[in-house]
Amino acid sequence: MGHNRCRGFRVGSSIRGKHRGRAGPGSRKHRRGLRPQPRFPPLPPTSGGVFLPHAMSEPGATSRLRLSALCFLLQTFTILLFAAFVRFSPEGSPGLCSQPLNCSRRSQDWGSQPPRFWDVHLQTLLGFGFLVAFLSRYGAGSVAISILVVAFAIQWALLLQGFLHQFRNGKIHMGAQSVARAAFGAAAALISIGAVLGRVNPVQTLLLTLLGVTLFTLNEYTLLSLLGVSDSGGSITVHTFGAYFGLLVSRLLHQPHGAQWEEQQDGGHQQDGGHHPDGFAAVGTISLWIFWPGFTSSTTAHGSAEPWAVLNTYLSMAVSTMATFVLSPVLYEQSTLRMAQIQDATMAGAAVMGMAGEMLLTPFGALIAGFLAGLIPPLGFRFLTPFLRSRLKIQDTRGVHNVHGLPGVLGSLLGTLLAALATADAYGGRLEPVFPLLARGSRTRSGQALLQLSALLLSLLGAALGGCLTGAVLRVKALRSAPAKRYLQGTEVDEGRKEPGTSTLV
Amino acid sequence: MGHNRCRGFRVGSSIRGKHRGRAGPGSRKHRRGLRPQPRFPPLPPTSGGVFLPHAMSEPGATSRLRLSALCFLLQTFTILLFAAFVRFSPEGSPGLCSQPLNCSRRSQDWGSQPPRFWDVHLQTLLGFGFLVAFLSRYGAGSVAISILVVAFAIQWALLLQGFLHQFRNGKIHMGAQSVARAAFGAAAALISIGAVLGRVNPVQTLLLTLLGVTLFTLNEYTLLSLLGVSDSGGSITVHTFGAYFGLLVSRLLHQPHGAQWEEQQDGGHQQDGGHHPDGFAAVGTISLWIFWPGFTSSTTAHGSAEPWAVLNTYLSMAVSTMATFVLSPVLYEQSTLRMAQIQDATMAGAAVMGMAGEMLLTPFGALIAGFLAGLIPPLGFRFLTPFLRSRLKIQDTRGVHNVHGLPGVLGSLLGTLLAALATADAYGGRLEPVFPLLARGSRTRSGQALLQLSALLLSLLGAALGGCLTGAVLRVKALRSAPAKRYLQGTEVDEGRKEPGTSTLV
Amino acid sequence: MGHNRCRGFRVGSSIRGKHRGRAGPGSRKHRRGLRPQPRFPPLPPTSGGVFLPHAMSEPGATSRLRLSALCFLLQTFTILLFAAFVRFSPEGSPGLCSQPLNCSRRSQDWGSQPPRFWDVHLQTLLGFGFLVAFLSRYGAGSVAISILVVAFAIQWALLLQGFLHQFRNGKIHMGAQSVARAAFGAAAALISIGAVLGRVNPVQTLLLTLLGVTLFTLNEYTLLSLLGVSDSGGSITVHTFGAYFGLLVSRLLHQPHGAQWEEQQDGGHQQDGGHHPDGFAAVGTISLWIFWPGFTSSTTAHGSAEPWAVLNTYLSMAVSTMATFVLSPVLYEQSTLRMAQIQDATMAGAAVMGMAGEMLLTPFGALIAGFLAGLIPPLGFRFLTPFLRSRLKIQDTRGVHNVHGLPGVLGSLLGTLLAALATADAYGGRLEPVFPLLARGSRTRSGQALLQLSALLLSLLGAALGGCLTGAVLRVKALRSAPAKRYLQGTEVDEGRKEPGTSTLV
Repeated sequence: MGHNRCRGFRVGSSIRGKHRGRAGPGSRKHRRGLRPQPRFPPLPPTSGGVFLPHAMSEPGATSRLRLSALCFLLQTFTILLFAAFVRFSPEGSPGLCSQPLNCSRRSQDWGSQPPRFWDVHLQTLLGFGFLVAFLSRYGAGSVAISILVVAFAIQWALLLQGFLHQFRNGKIHMGAQSVARAAFGAAAALISIGAVLGRVNPVQTLLLTLLGVTLFTLNEYTLLSLLGVSDSGGSITVHTFGAYFGLLVSRLLHQPHGAQWEEQQDGGHQQDGGHHPDGFAAVGTISLWIFWPGFTSSTTAHGSAEPWAVLNTYLSMAVSTMATFVLSPVLYEQSTLRMAQIQDATMAGAAVMGMAGEMLLTPFGALIAGFLAGLIPPLGFRFLTPFLRSRLKIQDTRGVHNVHGLPGVLGSLLGTLLAALATADAYGGRLEPVFPLLARGSRTRSGQALLQLSALLLSLLGAALGGCLTGAVLRVKALRSAPAKRYLQGTEVDEGRKEPGTSTLV
Repeated sequence: MGHNRCRGFRVGSSIRGKHRGRAGPGSRKHRRGLRPQPRFPPLPPTSGGVFLPHAMSEPGATSRLRLSALCFLLQTFTILLFAAFVRFSPEGSPGLCSQPLNCSRRSQDWGSQPPRFWDVHLQTLLGFGFLVAFLSRYGAGSVAISILVVAFAIQWALLLQGFLHQFRNGKIHMGAQSVARAAFGAAAALISIGAVLGRVNPVQTLLLTLLGVTLFTLNEYTLLSLLGVSDSGGSITVHTFGAYFGLLVSRLLHQPHGAQWEEQQDGGHQQDGGHHPDGFAAVGTISLWIFWPGFTSSTTAHGSAEPWAVLNTYLSMAVSTMATFVLSPVLYEQSTLRMAQIQDATMAGAAVMGMAGEMLLTPFGALIAGFLAGLIPPLGFRFLTPFLRSRLKIQDTRGVHNVHGLPGVLGSLLGTLLAALATADAYGGRLEPVFPLLARGSRTRSGQALLQLSALLLSLLGAALGGCLTGAVLRVKALRSAPAKRYLQGTEVDEGRKEPGTSTLV
Repeated sequence: MGHNRCRGFRVGSSIRGKHRGRAGPGSRKHRRGLRPQPRFPPLPPTSGGVFLPHAMSEPGATSRLRLSALCFLLQTFTILLFAAFVRFSPEGSPGLCSQPLNCSRRSQDWGSQPPRFWDVHLQTLLGFGFLVAFLSRYGAGSVAISILVVAFAIQWALLLQGFLHQFRNGKIHMGAQSVARAAFGAAAALISIGAVLGRVNPVQTLLLTLLGVTLFTLNEYTLLSLLGVSDSGGSITVHTFGAYFGLLVSRLLHQPHGAQWEEQQDGGHQQDGGHHPDGFAAVGTISLWIFWPGFTSSTTAHGSAEPWAVLNTYLSMAVSTMATFVLSPVLYEQSTLRMAQIQDATMAGAAVMGMAGEMLLTPFGALIAGFLAGLIPPLGFRFLTPFLRSRLKIQDTRGVHNVHGLPGVLGSLLGTLLAALATADAYGGRLEPVFPLLARGSRTRSGQALLQLSALLLSLLGAALGGCLTGAVLRVKALRSAPAKRYLQGTEVDEGRKEPGTSTLV
């Protein structure tokens, strides 16, 4: 009773217990496996901070120090690699185009017109604004661990992308565009982590980042540089790859005897947005609107032409928001539409334009694609997430499948369709920057479309294999924390933020 | 008692009840009409989410589905119109200058120097940052509905402005500047909604947006293109028009038997900023500082000259903040100055520079105008809002009259004065971009000044007529929700966020 | 008990009381001087609003009106000065280079390539984003007073910097770069205020701003224009000067009989970030990432070369974040890492790159410097802050010594080292913009290095003397508020936000 008196903005898993009784998007609970400890479940940490394994902080400081040691090792190793290989690019950044394939016009544009001082500022500004949008998706609670992920992923992606794309004369020549590209790698890692958030400890998170960014970079290199696929905004490479990689890791981390999880996870949206503070979701949504369109199209064709990718993305985000307002009241018997649902729709609308954004020639194409994308999250959280959890044993903490995975696949299919229809007549001067091989006649329309499609399948395969591998690594006994001690209410009240959320993986 | 123990950041109307006892800016309550339900009044929704009519969610799902259906209809209609008419502009965006009048130099500038890739990014980035500032004015609670308004208003304004300005050969040719201009339309709609927030349901809000954006576009077209008025930052077209339109709609929606409202609305500032979370107001103020000056001057004269409009706006915002610190302690016997008051002052300082920003030749003009503008909100909330409410039956939920209406009028009068004083000597090369007709000799100074003044009066008239029309439409029985059930404390505590705030219009 | 039920996001000093029992970064309390009122100590105000002296609001309205009168006087004086002296610069802004020394290439760059419209926008946008990062460091509670400080400091710095740098023919010619430079002055003032936050009333804060900005401008002029020191990002002029100036003011304001303060201040981090809401710290950290690198390097050499300062700053911030994850778990037996600690590390990583950012030729230099900078805040809060407080009687409310002071000194020493090593071979074309006097042969490497070092010592001396002077002024009886009444829990619960935090200076 007294508890209910404090309503409003809270950060902390206690809100989960408090709001349990309300009618949420997925409140028809699976009663199966219900344990008698529902009030303060060891859910994902959402208080502000990275939760070092709580249970182990009593037997010893080893687990706390393990993160410290891992950070130190990784950072030292990275500094050594930077010292040995990375130099600033002496002139304008050549971007990702060490390979002559697929980047003739793009690099040429940068070449003939060297990037101006402020262009580079804006590019990095947008790059980090872009990451903000991700961070805010995970609520204030997981921002600390997300920033650790970003801080490491950016450095690691700089190194790996540098080795693959900008390695000349034994040195990596990095520039501002390298940082912008590395932000894509960090974004893919954040998406993956969204699937397992709350069930991995920080050490596992960092290892997941290490492996995820490595596999992302290899996949991106294969697709963009070797196969000549057009995917400048990352529908395949970032959204689809990141989401399915994370889901497979989540599957591997599934514990058969961890059945109490299923009861708590009913209604993926419950965790995703149903209860995290709306203020944070509002900031996230707004950041998406401000920063996303500019950044995802920052690697598209630069010319004097109108930047259609930006406009297409804006339109898609606006329409997908409308679509959620259309569908959500039909699907959920709730009287309110939560900010988090709007944020999901906005993100889905952005993800679907990753590949197709620079290919769509008319605004209404973006409107239709955005409308379809906006329907995916409400449908997915309602029908698909429970299915994944109960049948496939895949828990998807933040619903990345609905917000990144499926919209990314939809965007890839749309891109494939557009590649199949791309004629020189319709595209005119835009054909060259968007489909350079097509424009030069070294590839047919159907060939390009087939490639785009096979890139999607290849990425899914890569994500699946990589996810299984990574999941197997993270299951290694030494990385797991000790079993979480039962979480008593009294303790919880007294100890405030010491949620043991990250230590539930036995 | 237990209730009072939780202080701090809350989102939700419960804070209203909690803080009632404190000395706020407008706490000398009008005791007239006091009803015995003061603790949890059905105030504007401020929890995070769009509140579908609560009371109707019990008799049936019809009202919930009505919003869904309206969104679907409007979005389908918009997609069809986009499909039929809108195409991307093949070359650089020609802006608003289909009419040869008043835009010779501006379009010429864009023409001779095609907008660069990043310029367009920045323009859209600022455009949405600009909208953030508005969103945050309404508190976290109304962000969801505000984003719905923005998502629809942007599309609708794109269409209407396109028909009026960029319709050639049966097609609208949209570019990045179209999106930036459409943001002005969305801003005007948000201002209008600020006046009636909490007393209209989402369906009414969406219709208000539809009609408001339509009238805004017509008014803007008349002023800027037909009359050749200089109002690049929207002192008249956005702030004044939006505010008075909303106020008239509010007047029309007044319910004589809804007297309980008056009691709750005492001290307009009480609702406006007195109680919405300061964290949100802080973010809003900061967004204003960052994004507003750049955007409102994005449509001003582009040349190699110093962008005085940006600097004037910054100075005006800084001084109006100081002015609030001067006046508020005198007017209110409070011991604290709330963030929301600072946000209001900042916004007023920005609104006053909408028209005059590009006309002021010396910084101290901006300082004086900003100082005057900063005095308006404290005075208005103290004296004018209670008068409007009690005498004119106009409830102004978020105080748009004090923050947008009066500062907009002040800015227009200042612009009129500056037009009357504009000589070629003083302006030099700047006369052409700011007053093109004056520079070409086809209009006299006094003629231009008279036009600026008549544009203000015309807009006020248009806003009044349009507001009455729109209010009459919104009063249609079918659009109203069922009467709000009395809001019991017990219910409120148990049901958390299900505030029936939007269903109080009988 | 009921109190503990409301966990989560609060703004207000009550959270201090609530969380006292937990193991925080500095929880091994110095028991010396413990008074029996630990539950609700009169700590710095963190509720949303500027707290006018509470205790005096009962004897009379004089103290409330004193702030009003001071604001009015200062603003009127400023407007008069602007009216008399300040005009917009007719052509592109000449920046800070009235002196021919040290800015040949920079001004030349601007000259040959006049700043474009959007460049200026971006510069001001970044300038204010830069200030955001500071504001958020102080929590939502002190944003109102911080915005007052910014609003006044910007105007005052514009005037003073104008008199020193852009005074020609009896007029100051201001441009967009003037506003950007003035933001540095405002930043220095905010840093100083961070050291005394909560122990000065608003009137004292405003006077501190007035004197602080004046001294900052004099120091900056001496260093940059007279001595030809390279410190474009303000390691010395902003961070070091601001921090030590604030610390000396704090020392002067120390009250021997105010011993209860010491008990409350144990664990500087307790106040700094340990307890201010993590959501705000998250927003601040993200703003730092987005806006800081672009802005601090906005005054570096503009050329076609890669903007190394931006990239160096990004890398430094990423690595310093990692460093905090390495060190904090070792130093503190806490199970969580707070967002505020991450924010401190990010800021330290940015401060260390202020001077060296444009000098470092290889990325791994930035990585190493960032790693060292990231170690400073955890070590400082653990060992140095308690020492300063107990031995030197310097209270450092927000830990500016650890976050700005020491990293600034480290950055200056690094810059000195780099200047000593700067050869034309290594720098090539970059030598001229970074060390113009060196490039032209009018100064030797060792001479430049010596100057950089003496600039640091000179600034420290200036900050010390200026801080003593300012502290002495602020101690004047007339400026102090009446003694704070004892802060009873009952009062606190009833009065909500009326914390008397600012009135504890007897």
